[in-house]
Amino acid sequence: MESAQFLDILGNKNRRNILQLLASRPYYISEISDRIGLGQKAVLDHLGLLEQSGLIRSKTTKQRRKYYHITENLKLEVFVSPYSYTVETSVVIQQPSTQTDQMQPSDQAGGSQSIKLLKQLNKYLFQLESKRRQLAEKQCKVEGEMIDIMSKCIDMIQETAQNNPEAEIMTELLKHPQDKRSLSINLDLPEYFLEEHIQSLVDKQIIIKREKDNKKIMSLL
Amino acid sequence: MESAQFLDILGNKNRRNILQLLASRPYYISEISDRIGLGQKAVLDHLGLLEQSGLIRSKTTKQRRKYYHITENLKLEVFVSPYSYTVETSVVIQQPSTQTDQMQPSDQAGGSQSIKLLKQLNKYLFQLESKRRQLAEKQCKVEGEMIDIMSKCIDMIQETAQNNPEAEIMTELLKHPQDKRSLSINLDLPEYFLEEHIQSLVDKQIIIKREKDNKKIMSLL
Repeated sequence: MESAQFLDILGNKNRRNILQLLASRPYYISEISDRIGLGQKAVLDHLGLLEQSGLIRSKTTKQRRKYYHITENLKLEVFVSPYSYTVETSVVIQQPSTQTDQMQPSDQAGGSQSIKLLKQLNKYLFQLESKRRQLAEKQCKVEGEMIDIMSKCIDMIQETAQNNPEAEIMTELLKHPQDKRSLSINLDLPEYFLEEHIQSLVDKQIIIKREKDNKKIMSLL
Repeated sequence: MESAQFLDILGNKNRRNILQLLASRPYYISEISDRIGLGQKAVLDHLGLLEQSGLIRSKTTKQRRKYYHITENLKLEVFVSPYSYTVETSVVIQQPSTQTDQMQPSDQAGGSQSIKLLKQLNKYLFQLESKRRQLAEKQCKVEGEMIDIMSKCIDMIQETAQNNPEAEIMTELLKHPQDKRSLSINLDLPEYFLEEHIQSLVDKQIIIKREKDNKKIMSLL
């Protein structure tokens, strides 16, 4: 799914409530309507939109009851700062855990065997959650350092650039080395207008051009 | 900011476009209106909402031009799967980078000195970005493993639970150990109804109660 579509979906409180509900088990319409306190017609509209996006699907039981369930493992990350706006949606792929390969219930396993196994798996789940948190904290620190460097760079660009277009070009290249066409799109400025400023920055050896995949990529490095 | 408020903000395409724009530099209203192709009245409404949330602020220059800029470093993470729906907003705190302490321009630094420093900082920024990506990939693998364990646990709960309420209680405790009150809120089921099922699960030694901070926390462990 596109990030924009995912954000549009998540931008509605009722849809968030429906997703939260379906994340515990499949539900049918009147149950959802009761639980989130919203009329069935409105619930149906939201479910239709969610189904269209591929995020949920329905399955009708023998008793002709239509159950809705989540089908995807989607992760969305948004980062907003004075220097960056990034939105990323990724599919998390189920990873067969090697650690738990031996933890299969034997064929003759009774109820108590299953419960023992469930407890072992739950313990391992908490270990993974703590590992996930540690990685998230490390990532947060790196991002905090990036903001610091970024703010220093922006100060230095303000000092070095001779006019606004130069500063905008340098700021854009600071984030991603790119060619003239991308620069024109990202800055919403025509290429003929950029050319003279690019040339001036090249002359001052502030930006460097490199040939890559038949494109002239510019960077500050 | 609350995650719900942040998601409401991000649920609108025009507000996303405004944020993306402000993430490169401060802008004033008619500039924003031109760049995103939206009337000034509508832009003003969105800016008002963004300002109210604390995500952006305005500053009026001597020329009486009102510039808007982003003031926060906010990160939002959403994870949706058949077994979980988590939304987390966190403030990323700017981390003074020790690596670049020596990289200060000297007082007599000329333009070329600043440019050299900018290039060094930019190089370090790319290194941090690659570190950030590596951590994100590791995190994604851990999350993929968690989904795998989770699906195995759910299968086992279906096998072990004697009725729907038991399954719902076990699934909820699988995610977070918690007391009866939280369970009642999260499952939207009255406490008196839960009590008999909890007792039955305790008797079967499937769930265990522990005293913590004067609360009786239940878990599968």
